Amino acid sequence: MNKIIDQKLSDSDKMFNDLSFLKEIANTIRGLSMDAILAANSGHPGLPLGMADVATVLWSKFLKHNPSNPNWHDRDRFVLSGGHGSMLLYSLLHIYGYDLPLSEIKNFRQWESKTPGHPEVHETAGVETTTGPLGQGLANAVGMALAEAHLAGKSNKGTHNIVDHYTYCFVGDGDLEEGISHEVCSFAGHNKLSKLIVFYDSNRITIDGPTSLSFSDHTYKRFKAYGWDVIDIDGHDYKEIEDAIKMAKRDIKKPSLIICNTQIGFGSPNRAGTSKAHGEPFPEEEVKLTKKALGMPENKKFYIPKSVTDISKTVIKRGKALEKEWDKRFEKFCNSYSGLHIKYTQAMNGEVPSMGFKIPKFDVGTKMATRAASGKIIEHLIEYVPALIGGSADLTPSNKTLPKHELVFSPKYKKGRYIHYGVREHGMAAIMNGMALHGGLIPYAGTFFVFTDYMRPAMRMSALMQQQVIYVLTHDSIGLGEDGPTHQPIGHLAAMRAIPNMSVVRPMDANETVEAWKLALRNTKGPTCLVLTRQGLPTIDRSSRYAWDVSKASQGAYVVIEDDSYSVIIMASGSEVHIAMEAREILNKEGIEVRIVSMMSMDVFEKQSDKYKQKVLPWKKKRRVAIEAGATMPWYKYVGMNGKVIGLDHFGASAPYEKLYQEFGLTAEAVVKAVKEVL
Amino acid sequence: MNKIIDQKLSDSDKMFNDLSFLKEIANTIRGLSMDAILAANSGHPGLPLGMADVATVLWSKFLKHNPSNPNWHDRDRFVLSGGHGSMLLYSLLHIYGYDLPLSEIKNFRQWESKTPGHPEVHETAGVETTTGPLGQGLANAVGMALAEAHLAGKSNKGTHNIVDHYTYCFVGDGDLEEGISHEVCSFAGHNKLSKLIVFYDSNRITIDGPTSLSFSDHTYKRFKAYGWDVIDIDGHDYKEIEDAIKMAKRDIKKPSLIICNTQIGFGSPNRAGTSKAHGEPFPEEEVKLTKKALGMPENKKFYIPKSVTDISKTVIKRGKALEKEWDKRFEKFCNSYSGLHIKYTQAMNGEVPSMGFKIPKFDVGTKMATRAASGKIIEHLIEYVPALIGGSADLTPSNKTLPKHELVFSPKYKKGRYIHYGVREHGMAAIMNGMALHGGLIPYAGTFFVFTDYMRPAMRMSALMQQQVIYVLTHDSIGLGEDGPTHQPIGHLAAMRAIPNMSVVRPMDANETVEAWKLALRNTKGPTCLVLTRQGLPTIDRSSRYAWDVSKASQGAYVVIEDDSYSVIIMASGSEVHIAMEAREILNKEGIEVRIVSMMSMDVFEKQSDKYKQKVLPWKKKRRVAIEAGATMPWYKYVGMNGKVIGLDHFGASAPYEKLYQEFGLTAEAVVKAVKEVL
Repeated sequence: MNKIIDQKLSDSDKMFNDLSFLKEIANTIRGLSMDAILAANSGHPGLPLGMADVATVLWSKFLKHNPSNPNWHDRDRFVLSGGHGSMLLYSLLHIYGYDLPLSEIKNFRQWESKTPGHPEVHETAGVETTTGPLGQGLANAVGMALAEAHLAGKSNKGTHNIVDHYTYCFVGDGDLEEGISHEVCSFAGHNKLSKLIVFYDSNRITIDGPTSLSFSDHTYKRFKAYGWDVIDIDGHDYKEIEDAIKMAKRDIKKPSLIICNTQIGFGSPNRAGTSKAHGEPFPEEEVKLTKKALGMPENKKFYIPKSVTDISKTVIKRGKALEKEWDKRFEKFCNSYSGLHIKYTQAMNGEVPSMGFKIPKFDVGTKMATRAASGKIIEHLIEYVPALIGGSADLTPSNKTLPKHELVFSPKYKKGRYIHYGVREHGMAAIMNGMALHGGLIPYAGTFFVFTDYMRPAMRMSALMQQQVIYVLTHDSIGLGEDGPTHQPIGHLAAMRAIPNMSVVRPMDANETVEAWKLALRNTKGPTCLVLTRQGLPTIDRSSRYAWDVSKASQGAYVVIEDDSYSVIIMASGSEVHIAMEAREILNKEGIEVRIVSMMSMDVFEKQSDKYKQKVLPWKKKRRVAIEAGATMPWYKYVGMNGKVIGLDHFGASAPYEKLYQEFGLTAEAVVKAVKEVL
Repeated sequence: MNKIIDQKLSDSDKMFNDLSFLKEIANTIRGLSMDAILAANSGHPGLPLGMADVATVLWSKFLKHNPSNPNWHDRDRFVLSGGHGSMLLYSLLHIYGYDLPLSEIKNFRQWESKTPGHPEVHETAGVETTTGPLGQGLANAVGMALAEAHLAGKSNKGTHNIVDHYTYCFVGDGDLEEGISHEVCSFAGHNKLSKLIVFYDSNRITIDGPTSLSFSDHTYKRFKAYGWDVIDIDGHDYKEIEDAIKMAKRDIKKPSLIICNTQIGFGSPNRAGTSKAHGEPFPEEEVKLTKKALGMPENKKFYIPKSVTDISKTVIKRGKALEKEWDKRFEKFCNSYSGLHIKYTQAMNGEVPSMGFKIPKFDVGTKMATRAASGKIIEHLIEYVPALIGGSADLTPSNKTLPKHELVFSPKYKKGRYIHYGVREHGMAAIMNGMALHGGLIPYAGTFFVFTDYMRPAMRMSALMQQQVIYVLTHDSIGLGEDGPTHQPIGHLAAMRAIPNMSVVRPMDANETVEAWKLALRNTKGPTCLVLTRQGLPTIDRSSRYAWDVSKASQGAYVVIEDDSYSVIIMASGSEVHIAMEAREILNKEGIEVRIVSMMSMDVFEKQSDKYKQKVLPWKKKRRVAIEAGATMPWYKYVGMNGKVIGLDHFGASAPYEKLYQEFGLTAEAVVKAVKEVL
């Protein structure tokens, strides 16, 4: 099918076959970048000037996209991993016909502009992912290429190639120094993601000075060791750039790295090739000198020659034709495979099927870890939610993330809906972001809760980009026991709750875990952490008239059990709700009546109406106690200065978990004592 | 000098030249490991059984150490990066004469035992670092090797080699899949840390199954690309192991990777070579079968043959002789270079020189970012604190971490006290842990505060291991402005404060920054985060009788300014203290009197006496407002349910910072409004 695309692209190529025209485009990009950065007095000129040539060839002669519909499913993805070079991307989007007027370029890095300091996926049409923290964009690109491979494996039938696009990514030294680059490039090589083409802006300069201060990898050999194709070119030679991309596209077995030897700040007489070019605006005089050296009118700001202005029309026309051609193919596909078509469309539109289907209720009394309940729930969901794609960072048996009858993704079985990510937590999270951004998939994957530390930069990006990524985080407290303090999360609930847009859900038994999973699936505009126990927990009876229905857990917090005229509210989450309930039994015997609130999710609770919040935690009921096997910080908001929080503000220890709860004072007795103190 | 050591080692070699004896040792390790894991019904047999042979050769014939003094400065360091294989290390420590009696082995993974689930540096003599979270141990080993190289460069004079040891490290597939392995191995290759020798337990098995599920790196080529020597051997062949170590020691230009092809769970008839061997205790029957297959008495538990029991005496004797020989060299060194000697001893003992020396006071009124003040303070400290060694993850000009006259560490200039870590935040933090663990150095290094996300797993290890590592974290809030939300920390103060033992210090002006640095230097039993602004802040006048002395900042929180009969306490940290002070001026005009508290460090404040805490935040003064440019969570403890917290529970944006403060309501007007609400 790619032949048709190539034909379409090359038909419009005539204008782009003129090397001097390509040069004019590249220099226009350079001019716009310098001017915008100077106007903002802030920004990074080095990358846009250095990579303008490569970008021009790629966008003019190869990129399959339709600027008038940036959401066309089968567009090629373009990721600028070094987001600090955002002016390169904004210049491209403007020139190639996206909805980004020159006024926005002039408003670079200003309040409410569409041109923020680093590219943000929801701010600007044509930006595929939010980048800036190094390595993330590259990892997202791997995720996008994985999504393409998987969806192609799942949807393409016979000659009906409806998923068939490339993922292009620009990376710099910084991206390749970051650890995540190892995780995801090793992963991409292993999984033979051949439609991933990465351009390495090898300019031998970092902020601190020449790369030789800290970096002497043989990158060519390194990527060969990962099973990639590697091509080494002059990043300012249009012919070499074009040939390299063609060669990379021809390889259908390996991802490709094109090492582009470039000069940072290309064209600048005094700053090119220096670390000053990286992140400091050129002074006005240097902007002029650079324009002069490039053969541009030195006194015109934000200058775009007429011929370059005309590009957008050509590219938009070409883009529409490309999409139309795809529409036809898609129509044929729909007619031939109506079942697949419905699934495909639902998934690409991010629809989650209604929850009408049955997730089984768990029987009261059975003891089951919430991770085990989650595993059983996944067995059902995998069948009813076609967009789900699972995985684990080499903790599959512990995380209970692999459904029994599901086959594993591999280069030979791309339909497989389960990914063995290897011991690559950080890469896993960022790859999931890439899959979610690609569309058509709801990724979930597991690791131990403590290792959210490893994934944190990518989890923050899930939250910032509001992507539906589901983190299955088992072994959620000292309750994991013998593995000891290295593996026992303490501050992790607090740390996760501190990330805006991150939903943190910690259910207290199997039936609450059902509600937790429902929340995760309904949370289509953000990531969810499902925080689950290793240890078994009783499935509690909620049939008493003193208990609220478990469905109320979907509102974040609710009453698990209470006494008629309670005087104290005891709050807890997850496994500690059981300790609170145990304390109630002791207190009741002494005539003290209490209400037990399961705070399954603070963030979900915060989103409820004031009326509901008052119903659960009435303002007048000021005597409050909270217990959670973690840092106490998050609870003071709910217990106030007079309340008591029982938690852990120190590290754990290695021993059977019952012993740890006892020794660390997370006991019914401690709750009883605290209740008496607040009374 | 190493020749003498080699001689000493080989003198005692005779017993270890008997290959069948080596085998007996290795099998004893296997037996102890299986028995302890079975007794605990928890633990990981795969690694100890697979790597027992390599460990036996290394510990018998090469490791320079003195079990009767595990703190001898010039011992070789041995790091088990795959901490889950802890029984390998415990078995070695027991057999080779450390203070770890068999009763402790029998008490594996139990409360208060010296044999926790993963090795912990403060729990067990001979354990060099706490490991478990994968990749950390490897990174620590790189840090130790870096410390050795630097201290040798600084201290060794002529023939007086007082710093001259190797760092050995065992890693597994998991360690090498983790991103941090890329960062630190690239770093080690670049810096030619030739005395680092890493053994890769290549057993081709992970938890999820064969490594082929997720991993197909050509590790040999990968490490060659990093500039390492790589040797490939049969990890069960004693001769090959010995030759490889000799070869690795001979290379004085590159770090070495010895790829040991091993069988996981070696010896077990039914589990060897399977993923079941990795993390599940062998059933009793399989333990017996394995012992039988290894030629060990199958019914004896915790069995150690007499010949193996005798090893400890030999090794202790040898160790004492080795240390004595070093003592002699050290004495000569002391006599020849008394100045160096004092500095060396102080540093190795972790002494921080008294703070009597002058850190300059900053002039009132000058506007200065706290990062700039920190830079000026470092200029002084570098001179007075010989153990300090600085660095940055490629943000040197932004972090202001490089003292003007300091030269940079390089393979050619090992004395250099500044490290260009490259864009490797995670590696940097873990390398600093390794240097701190090595002793003789107090590492500090910088990056943007938002990138603590990247370093978090290692920062948590600094805290868990209580190591003095100083994190210089600049660009600490939306105050960084135009770079936008990708670079603006929001939940980061909360997330850092949630880590036990982590000291988080956020000064409000240049003179508080002096106090912040003093706290960091005095905090010898844990890491400190210095959280610093990008934007300029006025250096405030504290001469009023309504202001407390700035030295009170050392108690975490104190009164910056107050009114005679204040009715409201306004708390803030860092840059927001100035907003609080501005609000006071408005409030005063309206006749409302307030107290402004600078909460420079919550954790330091929490450690003060109740009396002091009451003095700063009197219990009766319940009307409270807090303002901080970050998540509100940490403040509720201090303001209570009736108080108000002005903060940011959403992401930032790209614009000049003054605009952001205005738009996000972090203003004096907002504080005034909140004060009126609580009144």
